[in-house]
Formats: sequence, structure tokens, C-alpha cells
Amino acid sequence: MARPTIALLTDFGHADHYAGTLKGVLLTLCPDATLVDITHEIPPHDVMGAALELAACYRYFPAGTIFLVVVDPGVGSARRGLVAEAGDYRFVAPDNGVLSLVFHETRPRKVVDLTERRYARPTVSKTFEGRDRFAPAAGWLAKGIDLTAMGRPVSQWHVLDMPQPDVDGRRLSGQVLRVDRFGNLVTNIDRKRFELFRQEADIQIAVDGQPVDRLVATYAESAEGALCALFGSTDHLEIALNGGSAALRLGLGRGAGVHIDRN
Amino acid sequence: MARPTIALLTDFGHADHYAGTLKGVLLTLCPDATLVDITHEIPPHDVMGAALELAACYRYFPAGTIFLVVVDPGVGSARRGLVAEAGDYRFVAPDNGVLSLVFHETRPRKVVDLTERRYARPTVSKTFEGRDRFAPAAGWLAKGIDLTAMGRPVSQWHVLDMPQPDVDGRRLSGQVLRVDRFGNLVTNIDRKRFELFRQEADIQIAVDGQPVDRLVATYAESAEGALCALFGSTDHLEIALNGGSAALRLGLGRGAGVHIDRN
Amino acid sequence: MARPTIALLTDFGHADHYAGTLKGVLLTLCPDATLVDITHEIPPHDVMGAALELAACYRYFPAGTIFLVVVDPGVGSARRGLVAEAGDYRFVAPDNGVLSLVFHETRPRKVVDLTERRYARPTVSKTFEGRDRFAPAAGWLAKGIDLTAMGRPVSQWHVLDMPQPDVDGRRLSGQVLRVDRFGNLVTNIDRKRFELFRQEADIQIAVDGQPVDRLVATYAESAEGALCALFGSTDHLEIALNGGSAALRLGLGRGAGVHIDRN
Repeated sequence: MARPTIALLTDFGHADHYAGTLKGVLLTLCPDATLVDITHEIPPHDVMGAALELAACYRYFPAGTIFLVVVDPGVGSARRGLVAEAGDYRFVAPDNGVLSLVFHETRPRKVVDLTERRYARPTVSKTFEGRDRFAPAAGWLAKGIDLTAMGRPVSQWHVLDMPQPDVDGRRLSGQVLRVDRFGNLVTNIDRKRFELFRQEADIQIAVDGQPVDRLVATYAESAEGALCALFGSTDHLEIALNGGSAALRLGLGRGAGVHIDRN
Repeated sequence: MARPTIALLTDFGHADHYAGTLKGVLLTLCPDATLVDITHEIPPHDVMGAALELAACYRYFPAGTIFLVVVDPGVGSARRGLVAEAGDYRFVAPDNGVLSLVFHETRPRKVVDLTERRYARPTVSKTFEGRDRFAPAAGWLAKGIDLTAMGRPVSQWHVLDMPQPDVDGRRLSGQVLRVDRFGNLVTNIDRKRFELFRQEADIQIAVDGQPVDRLVATYAESAEGALCALFGSTDHLEIALNGGSAALRLGLGRGAGVHIDRN
Repeated sequence: MARPTIALLTDFGHADHYAGTLKGVLLTLCPDATLVDITHEIPPHDVMGAALELAACYRYFPAGTIFLVVVDPGVGSARRGLVAEAGDYRFVAPDNGVLSLVFHETRPRKVVDLTERRYARPTVSKTFEGRDRFAPAAGWLAKGIDLTAMGRPVSQWHVLDMPQPDVDGRRLSGQVLRVDRFGNLVTNIDRKRFELFRQEADIQIAVDGQPVDRLVATYAESAEGALCALFGSTDHLEIALNGGSAALRLGLGRGAGVHIDRN
């Protein structure tokens, strides 16, 4: 049997021991697990950022992967913990919306409220439930415990209120959701929505009121130093700068408005 | 038999190849090892910072884990290298105090001065003993070599001079030792010391002369944006700001004074 | 048989899901692989930086290691992808020079142009070939596919134009190539070149016109706070500051000139 893969996504950063501690807990329960870091550099408490990163990558992991997601501004409060099965994957996370983009794409088959104490550490810190509740649950899943043993089924969960693009006459408006390492401004406009709107007409694209040169298929088609628009690796429209950072050039980030006008 | 776990803690950062090189050396000796990063973002040469992170997390690792700790301002000098057994764990590190907090909690059974050349690489760089001496020693431990083969037993080692809290009349004074990713100011006052002092009396807490609202059990009990005090995941008193960074708000870091006054 | 090791070196950073996504793809193809991060913090598109880090560390990895190197300013363009065997190792990377320092040291036995579609993902993004072409190729190598199945042999590849040290009369001139985490300025002058020039004469070393105290064997031989020169862990001359950062003290980085004058 293949070794179980557990993929971690947190806002713990790399300077503190927190992510390492999760891994110690996971390996204590399941020494054969293969642990993979998706990222620990989600900005502190940025649930939407975490939800977007998770949704962008989970489908590239092996069937059977367990995702341990700890971005948890409500740590220690009454907010629930969730364990879920969706598609070929399982997920452990606080019930704060961080799984809702995945669930929107891949309807979960089973979701439980993580309450069963035998799958937590004996003492649960009010400030580090990642270590004492969530990592143990992921470790027990990896050992073969079924999630239905971990709590009662729930049929509702927190859903993030994601900004949606909308069409008004000849204008499609969206916004920047994510800025990546290369300064690309990734928007909430996906290719399907875009094509439906465009209908092969000529268009102009602008971000925060500034016109974007043109729509290209890849960075290399754009002149060095020119702003371009293209569909990135998650098939969402992004504003980019060949050989530089669009975010730095424009001074823009999450929430910046993007408009597409059709002739 | 379970695969051996080797946990790494260094000040090498993530930009250079140094941490990767250690892993190459470890896997060359012991291809079955599971390697875990605790952190590589200890500030350069911050032995105390490394000692604190290690002490905060080692007990959460599987029995048998080998900790490879390379924060080594004295690299290339005559300072010794240590290999130790303490509790269920083994440790490889320079003798500069970085293991002393662990040893204070868990008296080591055996400590040797790492001198045996056959467990080092053939050439030992004067600037990268992590690669040429410490990682090979950890790799050989993982392969099953007993630490007593690696050098002569020693009964003394460098001990960090850690600032201790103290009581003067109705005041308990401590200081901030660690600032974490979330801006929490973690002090050297542990719960036991605190309870002994407090005796259930009313108290006031101040950090650097500024009063802290109140002692809570978890961040969520505190008003958004208010300073609070609580016992964190290592059971030490910390000053926190619900929904923000206490460190940024106060402009404070390691060494800031914390006072608790009892009525 | 030992589990295959795949070592990753990219400019993807740690904040985005990109490096995690590569690992998902690798584990999907080869669940037994041991994945090792060399670094993901190469500055965006810094091919020379990546080439230097790779050359500094690859020889410390186990025989059989597959290096997946994705620093790819030409993503989506017509630049080729390479798969190569050199020494005991295999390499997958865009053909932009990032492998050329390794190839200069260790002449590759076989190099192919990565074109075979069956070893790519069904759809290849124009902005993330790391995920859709390079990681799959590395995964298939780890599964046992021979690189000759992946494309036609090539006998030429892009070679980086690396600045070389040169001698003019009694002066050896080189330059800083790399600044590490500790602020050490690592030059392109290796020990062999240096000894050949020096001939045991007295020398003076200067960086950007500022004299360097002396040549030492290790940081600890230098006075705290004094600039020194020494041969670092890759046997190249570096300018260092015991107990501090030479780069910060001098305000210098890649490209700074280093001169050695012989009496």
C-alpha cells in the first residue's frame, strides 16, 4: 500500500516551530506519512487567501491525500472543526470558510463536526488547536480511522462570501483576488465567464482604470515591460508584466477592480 | 522498522542551498530517513532563539527522532560538537548552549564530544561544519551507529544564561523572550510560577509600562484590537492582540519587561 | 530498492501554492519519491542565481537523485526543455543556462529535448510548464522511464555567460557572484586560481576599492567586526565580517569588484 500523503497549508510562517510541531504530531501518529508543504506563508488569519491557494492546487495531489489546513483566527473559540471527504481527498480544517471554494467545486460526500476527544491530544491548548486537534485528526485519518468516527455529520458549513464578477451592458467587471510571487494580479474572472461575455468581439481591458495593452497567450508574447492580460495556470484572467511585477508597477493588490469593455 | 526521523533546525534561511545540502548529505547516508524542517529562519547566529524553538517543540516528535541543530556562530573554531541522548531523542549540535534548555528539562543520559573522524566527511570545511560534521553524525545515528562511537563522554556543556523571572514583594517581573509570527510576545513566566505568585489575588499586568487589559483563556475572549494576556501553547504567559500584532502595536520585542502586580 | 530522491530548486517562493503543486504532481506519478527542497527563494527569473545554488550543492545528494529546476523566464515561449544525465544524477530544466555550471563541471552523458507529450500532463499551461511538463518528466524518470524516451538527443544547450576572473600583471580581478544569508560576499575566484596567482607572495585584497583586513582560514580567526577574506564551503574566495554581514556593512552585492594585488 502506498504511504499516505498529508499536505499542509497554514499561516504559521517559517520562522516559528509551529509548522514543525504539526509535523512531529503527524509523524508520531503515522510514521509512514509523506508530508508535503503547500505553503505556510498565508498572511496571518487570511482565510480567503488560504481558500484560494487550496482551491488552486488540491486537484494536483494524489488520490487519497489528506489536506490539513490551519488558518484559524477563531482558535480557542466555539467555531467548529471539520473533517470532510470530497472527491478523492479528505480535509481537516476549522469551519471558517477555508474549505468552501473546494466544496463549491467538489461537493463533499461526508462532513463531520470534529468533536471526538479520543482523536485529539489529551490536553487541547486554546491557542494551538492545530497541534492538539487538527493535526491529530489528520494523523488518525492517515492511520485508517474513518471520519465518521470523529464526530457527527453536518450538512451546513461556513461559506466564504467571495466577490463575483458581474456584467453590466457591455462591461464585465471583476476584481483582483490574489497577487503572486511574480507580481501577477490574478482576478476572479475565469475563462468560461470571459468567453461567454466576449463573444469574439474586440475588447479593452483595464485595471484600476489603467488600460492593459492586450490579451496574450503567454508572457513571452508581450513586449518586455508592457502590461498584458492572460489566462494563468488556474484559467483565471491575470494582469501581468513581462519581465517585471505588475503589482509593483501599478501599486495594486487584492480588491483592485478590473473592467473589460466590449465594442 | 519505522523509518528514522531527522528534524532540522538551523539559521540557514531558505534562499541559499545550505539547508538543502544538509538534506543531501543526510539522504546519502540514510536514504530511508524522513526529514522534517522545524525552521531554518532562526535569525543568523541567534543561539537563544534556536534553543527556545527547539525546547518548544521537541516533545511533539516521535520517539527516536534525531534533532540536527545548526546555529553555529563559532563554526570553524575550537568549540566542540555534541551528540546526546535525552529522553526518547538524540541531538547533534555545536556546544554553544543551543541544547541547554532541552537538557534542563530532560536530563541527558549520554553526551559525547563529536570528534571521531570516520563519522565526518573526508574534508571538513571551516565554514560549513553543518555539512561536513553535524549532518554526517546525524546520518550515522539514523543508520544505527551508537553515539558512544562518535567521541568521548563529556559531563559538562555550555549552558545558556537565560533571563529568569523574579519576585520582589507584590511584583513578579519577567521579560519577553520570543515574538512569534502573529506578533504575540511570549515571556519567560510560566503558568506554575505565575499561579504560585498570584494566589488567586487580583492582578494587573503591564508590558514595558503599558497596562494590559486582562488575562484571558483564549484570544477570542478579548475584544478585537485590545491587548490581552494569556497562557500560550507552551504554557508561558504571552501578551497578545486579538486580530492584530501586539509586537507591532507596542513596538516591542525580545527583552521587553513584563510586570505583574498583586493587590 | 531505495526510494528515488527528487530535489527541487525554483523561484516560486513559499507564499504561493506553486512549489506545493509540483510536489502533488510528483507524488501522483511516483508516490514513493522522497522530495527535497533545495530552495524556492531564487529571486524571480534569476537564472544565474539558480545555476550557482545548484552547482554548489548537487554533489552532496545521493547518487540517483533527480534535480527538478524551474527558474523559467521564458515559460510559454519556444525555449526548449532539457532532460539530462550527468555523473550520478539526472536533471530536468528549461534550456536557459540554469544547468550550464553543472555541465561545465560534469560533462553530461545524455541530453534530450523534452518534447514527448505522453510524459507531460494532458493540457500544458502556457504559464506553468513546471506543473505540466517539467514535474511530470521528473516524476516519470523517478518511475523508471529512461530519458531517451522523452525526446531527441541534443548536443548543444544554452550556456550562461559567467563573469570570469582575470589576471593583469600583479593583479587578479574577480567579482561577487552571490550574497548569502549571513551577508558573505562569495566571489568567482576559486582556490586553485588564487594559489596559482599568489605563488606564496604577500597580497592585499580589496572589495569595491575597500581594503580587506586579511585572509583567514575561518571566521573565528578574524576580530569581531573586522572584514576578512576566506575560502568558503565551495572553495571560492568570500569576503566576510565576523559577527555581522559584510554585504550590509559595505552595501555591496552581486557584481561588486574584488581585486587581489601581489607584492
